[in-house]
Amino acid sequence: MNNTDALKNIRIVLARPSHPGNIGATARAMKTMGLSDLRLVLPRHFPHPDALARAAGASDILENAKVVDSVSAALDGCVLAVASTARHRELRHDTMDARAAAREALDAAAAPVAILFGNETAGLTADEAANCRIWARIPTDAGFSSLNLGAAVQIFAYELRMACATAAPPPVAEFAPATIGQVEQLYAHFEERMTVSGFYNPASPGRLELRLRRLLARARLEAEEVNILRGFLTTLEKPKRR
Amino acid sequence: MNNTDALKNIRIVLARPSHPGNIGATARAMKTMGLSDLRLVLPRHFPHPDALARAAGASDILENAKVVDSVSAALDGCVLAVASTARHRELRHDTMDARAAAREALDAAAAPVAILFGNETAGLTADEAANCRIWARIPTDAGFSSLNLGAAVQIFAYELRMACATAAPPPVAEFAPATIGQVEQLYAHFEERMTVSGFYNPASPGRLELRLRRLLARARLEAEEVNILRGFLTTLEKPKRR
Repeated sequence: MNNTDALKNIRIVLARPSHPGNIGATARAMKTMGLSDLRLVLPRHFPHPDALARAAGASDILENAKVVDSVSAALDGCVLAVASTARHRELRHDTMDARAAAREALDAAAAPVAILFGNETAGLTADEAANCRIWARIPTDAGFSSLNLGAAVQIFAYELRMACATAAPPPVAEFAPATIGQVEQLYAHFEERMTVSGFYNPASPGRLELRLRRLLARARLEAEEVNILRGFLTTLEKPKRR
Repeated sequence: MNNTDALKNIRIVLARPSHPGNIGATARAMKTMGLSDLRLVLPRHFPHPDALARAAGASDILENAKVVDSVSAALDGCVLAVASTARHRELRHDTMDARAAAREALDAAAAPVAILFGNETAGLTADEAANCRIWARIPTDAGFSSLNLGAAVQIFAYELRMACATAAPPPVAEFAPATIGQVEQLYAHFEERMTVSGFYNPASPGRLELRLRRLLARARLEAEEVNILRGFLTTLEKPKRR
């Protein structure tokens, strides 16, 4: 994960939110993803204990949130605004999904960029959305598109953070993989024990060898796991405990 | 967007959720993304008016949710379980981010697949997570990783839906994958044989159980392979051939 510094320039704007719980959920969603700049346009109730409760450990985002009286004021200084909207409109702007919009937003985030969310019930007005060059949609089920406001902010914030990861470093192998030779020795050990137990008849092998080799290859065994399994097989060679 | 039929086979499992509001948020998050199968393991309060309130139009998901008393019961019939976890653990399963995990889940969703979420405060126990082949992490800010439970479900559900848009049609499975219950029975059979042989001492288990479960989870066993291994273990119970 690199380039997360750009997230400092991403501003979340809620236009006329009705439910203070959603403001708190927004603050928490932002902070988990490394965002911090919240602007509220004419919130119905703010500050409010429900906002504080839902913010959990993100109360600092609420304390630093700026309350303004218009979307234009909330977008002050921004070089790009993205509208989150589920609507189809006659006269479209650039429309894209949230993932593509997050990339565009991040690409522009050398300067402030806003993501704008409308009221829970009414969404964004045409005037509010007109401020935005990009209209972005979160794909939802055709039968039920009613995303919660805090959930919508969470998805955008998450996509912004994911967009920061241009090239993830390869995972560090914590455990040593078994060599092919070690797996081969394990296979031979299995076969020997299976023959002794009567499970496997080398004179009539069928597909057992193929099946077992295939399984062992797919398991991507670690060296230590080969040792464990061979340790077990070795105990089978000894007289059973009574 | 294609292939969303596979979402019908994706099951969301909440293990011991404390707050009914999060159950409601989960239901709404699921329904917006086209998921419908919810299982609750020992919820502290359910049904509850807070769950209903937060579900908004997704009350049908709550009505159809199955309440069970163990994670194993919740995973009944599943061929793959994915644990949502922020933890770093000493002994890792396949770990990947939520986006990659969603693709894997969808690829396996010709049969039921579970995404498992832990308690709000405590997360998943080691035993609960041991049922899961994949441990998936939602990337968060290093300074504040406290994702709300409903928000975490929302992100996974969203990634599952997004994965439908890009997924190739699922390959025709040549071999039937083992269910989690079948793998569990195989593990129990191994443990019993290892105890009898003297390899495993239940009074001093060490990390053997964890290691073996992890190996079996990673191997993505087929039903027939479980039969083969159990067939071998069964022959160990009989007197050896001379």
